[in-house]
Amino acid sequence: MYMTTLLITATIIFGLSALYFFTFRKQYGSHFPWLVSFITVISYLVIIMNTSGAVDPVSLLWTRWVGYGVSCTLLTASMVKIFGLTGNQKTTALILTPLIMLTGVLAAIASNVTFLILFFAIGMVPFLALIALLKKASTPKNASVLNYVYFGWMAFPVIFLLSPESFSVVESLPLILGAYLIADVFTKIVFYVTSRKFLRGNREERESLG
Amino acid sequence: MYMTTLLITATIIFGLSALYFFTFRKQYGSHFPWLVSFITVISYLVIIMNTSGAVDPVSLLWTRWVGYGVSCTLLTASMVKIFGLTGNQKTTALILTPLIMLTGVLAAIASNVTFLILFFAIGMVPFLALIALLKKASTPKNASVLNYVYFGWMAFPVIFLLSPESFSVVESLPLILGAYLIADVFTKIVFYVTSRKFLRGNREERESLG
Amino acid sequence: MYMTTLLITATIIFGLSALYFFTFRKQYGSHFPWLVSFITVISYLVIIMNTSGAVDPVSLLWTRWVGYGVSCTLLTASMVKIFGLTGNQKTTALILTPLIMLTGVLAAIASNVTFLILFFAIGMVPFLALIALLKKASTPKNASVLNYVYFGWMAFPVIFLLSPESFSVVESLPLILGAYLIADVFTKIVFYVTSRKFLRGNREERESLG
Repeated sequence: MYMTTLLITATIIFGLSALYFFTFRKQYGSHFPWLVSFITVISYLVIIMNTSGAVDPVSLLWTRWVGYGVSCTLLTASMVKIFGLTGNQKTTALILTPLIMLTGVLAAIASNVTFLILFFAIGMVPFLALIALLKKASTPKNASVLNYVYFGWMAFPVIFLLSPESFSVVESLPLILGAYLIADVFTKIVFYVTSRKFLRGNREERESLG
Repeated sequence: MYMTTLLITATIIFGLSALYFFTFRKQYGSHFPWLVSFITVISYLVIIMNTSGAVDPVSLLWTRWVGYGVSCTLLTASMVKIFGLTGNQKTTALILTPLIMLTGVLAAIASNVTFLILFFAIGMVPFLALIALLKKASTPKNASVLNYVYFGWMAFPVIFLLSPESFSVVESLPLILGAYLIADVFTKIVFYVTSRKFLRGNREERESLG
Repeated sequence: MYMTTLLITATIIFGLSALYFFTFRKQYGSHFPWLVSFITVISYLVIIMNTSGAVDPVSLLWTRWVGYGVSCTLLTASMVKIFGLTGNQKTTALILTPLIMLTGVLAAIASNVTFLILFFAIGMVPFLALIALLKKASTPKNASVLNYVYFGWMAFPVIFLLSPESFSVVESLPLILGAYLIADVFTKIVFYVTSRKFLRGNREERESLG
C-alpha cells in the first residue's frame, strides 16, 4: 500500500517535471530534459502495473533498469554535450550507459547470488570507464557537473545492494523505493535545473526547437 | 483461417515491395525504403508464427508494435531528411518514434483497461511532439508529405482502439488486420513512391549506393 | 559438464582480450575492440547462467544472437571506418547488422522447422546486402579485411545449421560450442589484432582517447 502510494507520487513528480521541461525546452536548448522525465513516468507506470497485487513484487522491479537504459542514455547525451565529447569518445559514452543498465537488468534477474555479484561487478567496468571519459573531458568551469555522477549515479548500485532485490540489508521495500526516488529526482531533475547554463546553446539553436 | 490468409497476403505484398525498392534504391537515393518493407515482412511472419493455432491470437499481436519501433523509426529518418531537420531536433524525432511504439507495446500488453488507457494517452505526447516538430520544419513545397502522418500514422491508434486488442468496437479480427494492412501499405509503400522526388539526393549521393 | 568448462574458458579468453584491448586502446585508436570482447563476456555469462542445470540447454542458446546484435554492430562500425563508408551507406550497414541478428534470434526460437528455415533464409538478405556494401567500398589495400566477413561471419549461420539448435547434423553440443568459440575468437580478436593498422587514426585522435 505504502509502496503504491510512493510509486504514484514518483509518477506525478516526473509527470510535472516533464511538463516543466517541455514548457521551457527553449531555455534548456534541448528536448532531452523533458524526454528523460517522460521516460521515467513510463518506467514508474510499468513498475506500478507489474507490482500492484503481485505476490512477489521484488522480483518484478528489474524493468527499472530497462527504463534507465533509455533515460540515462539521454542523460549521458546531455553530459556529452556539456563536456564537449566528440567522435569515438562520444559514441563510446553513449554505448557504455545502456551497457551499464544491461548489467543492472542481468543482476536483478540473476538466478543466484553468484551471478548477481558477477553481473554487478562486471557492470562497474563500463561505469568506471564512463566516469573516466567524462572526468578527462571536464574543465574547471564544468567539473561540478561530475558530482551528479559521483553522488547521484553511484547511489543506484548502492541502493540496489542494500535492497531486497539483492542482499536485503534494508528490508523495507518502501524505504528502498523512496531512496531510488530521491536519487531519480537528484540525477534527472536537479541535474538539469542546475546544469541549464552549460546546456543551452546559442540563440539560434534554441529558437529552432519546435 | 481468413486471418492467416490475410497475414500471408500482407507478407507477400511487403516482400514484393522490398524487392521493388531494393531494385530501385538508386532512384530513391536510399536503402531505407526497402529496409522498411523488409522489416515489415519479418514483423508479419512473427505474427503468423505466434497466432497460427493459438487459442487467444489477439493477445499475441503486440509484437506488431515492436516491428513498428524499428520500421517507423526508419520512416521518421526519411521524413527528417525530407523536412531537413538537423541536430537536436533530428535526434529528438528519432527518439520520439520508438517511444510512441513502446507505449503501443505497453498498451497492447496492459494488465487491465486502466493501464491500457494510460499508456495509450501517454503515447499521444510523443506522437503530438513528433507532428509538431515535422510540421514546423515543413515548407509549402513538401507540406503534402505531412498527410501521411495525419491520415496514415493516425490510423494505427484508431484501429487499435476499435480492435479486440482493446475495446472490441469492431469484433472481427480479419477486418482489423485488413485495416492495419491498408494503413501499412499507405504509410510504407505509397508514402515512399509519392515522396521519391523529395527523397532522392544529388546524382553523386545516389551513385554511391551499393 | 564439458559444456560449462568450455563456456567458462570462452568467458576467460574474452575477459583477457577485453583487458588487452582496453590497455592498448590508444594504439587501436578506438574503445570498440575492448567493448566487443566485453559484451562477448556478458553474452557467455548469460549462456552459462541459463544453461547450467537446465533440462533442455539447447533451447536457451538464442540469447547468443542478442549479444551478437550488440557486439557485431560495433564490429560493423569498425569495418565501416576501415572501408570509409559514410552517410546513408554507413547508417544502412549499422542497421543491417542487428537486423541479421534479429533473424538469428527468430530462427533460434522458431516454433517449427518451416519458420526456422524462413527466418534463416530471410536473414541472408541483410547479410548479403552488408557484404555487398562493404565489398563495393573496399580497396586493394584493405580488401583482405573482407575475409573476416566471408570466412568468419559466414561460419556462424553454418554452425547454427549443423547444431542441435536446428538440424542436429552434429549432435555434440560441446563440439558446436567449440566451433562458435573459434569463430568468435577469429572475428572479434584476430580481426582486431590484424586490422590495427587500418583502424588507428591519426596521433591526435588516439591521444584523445580517455
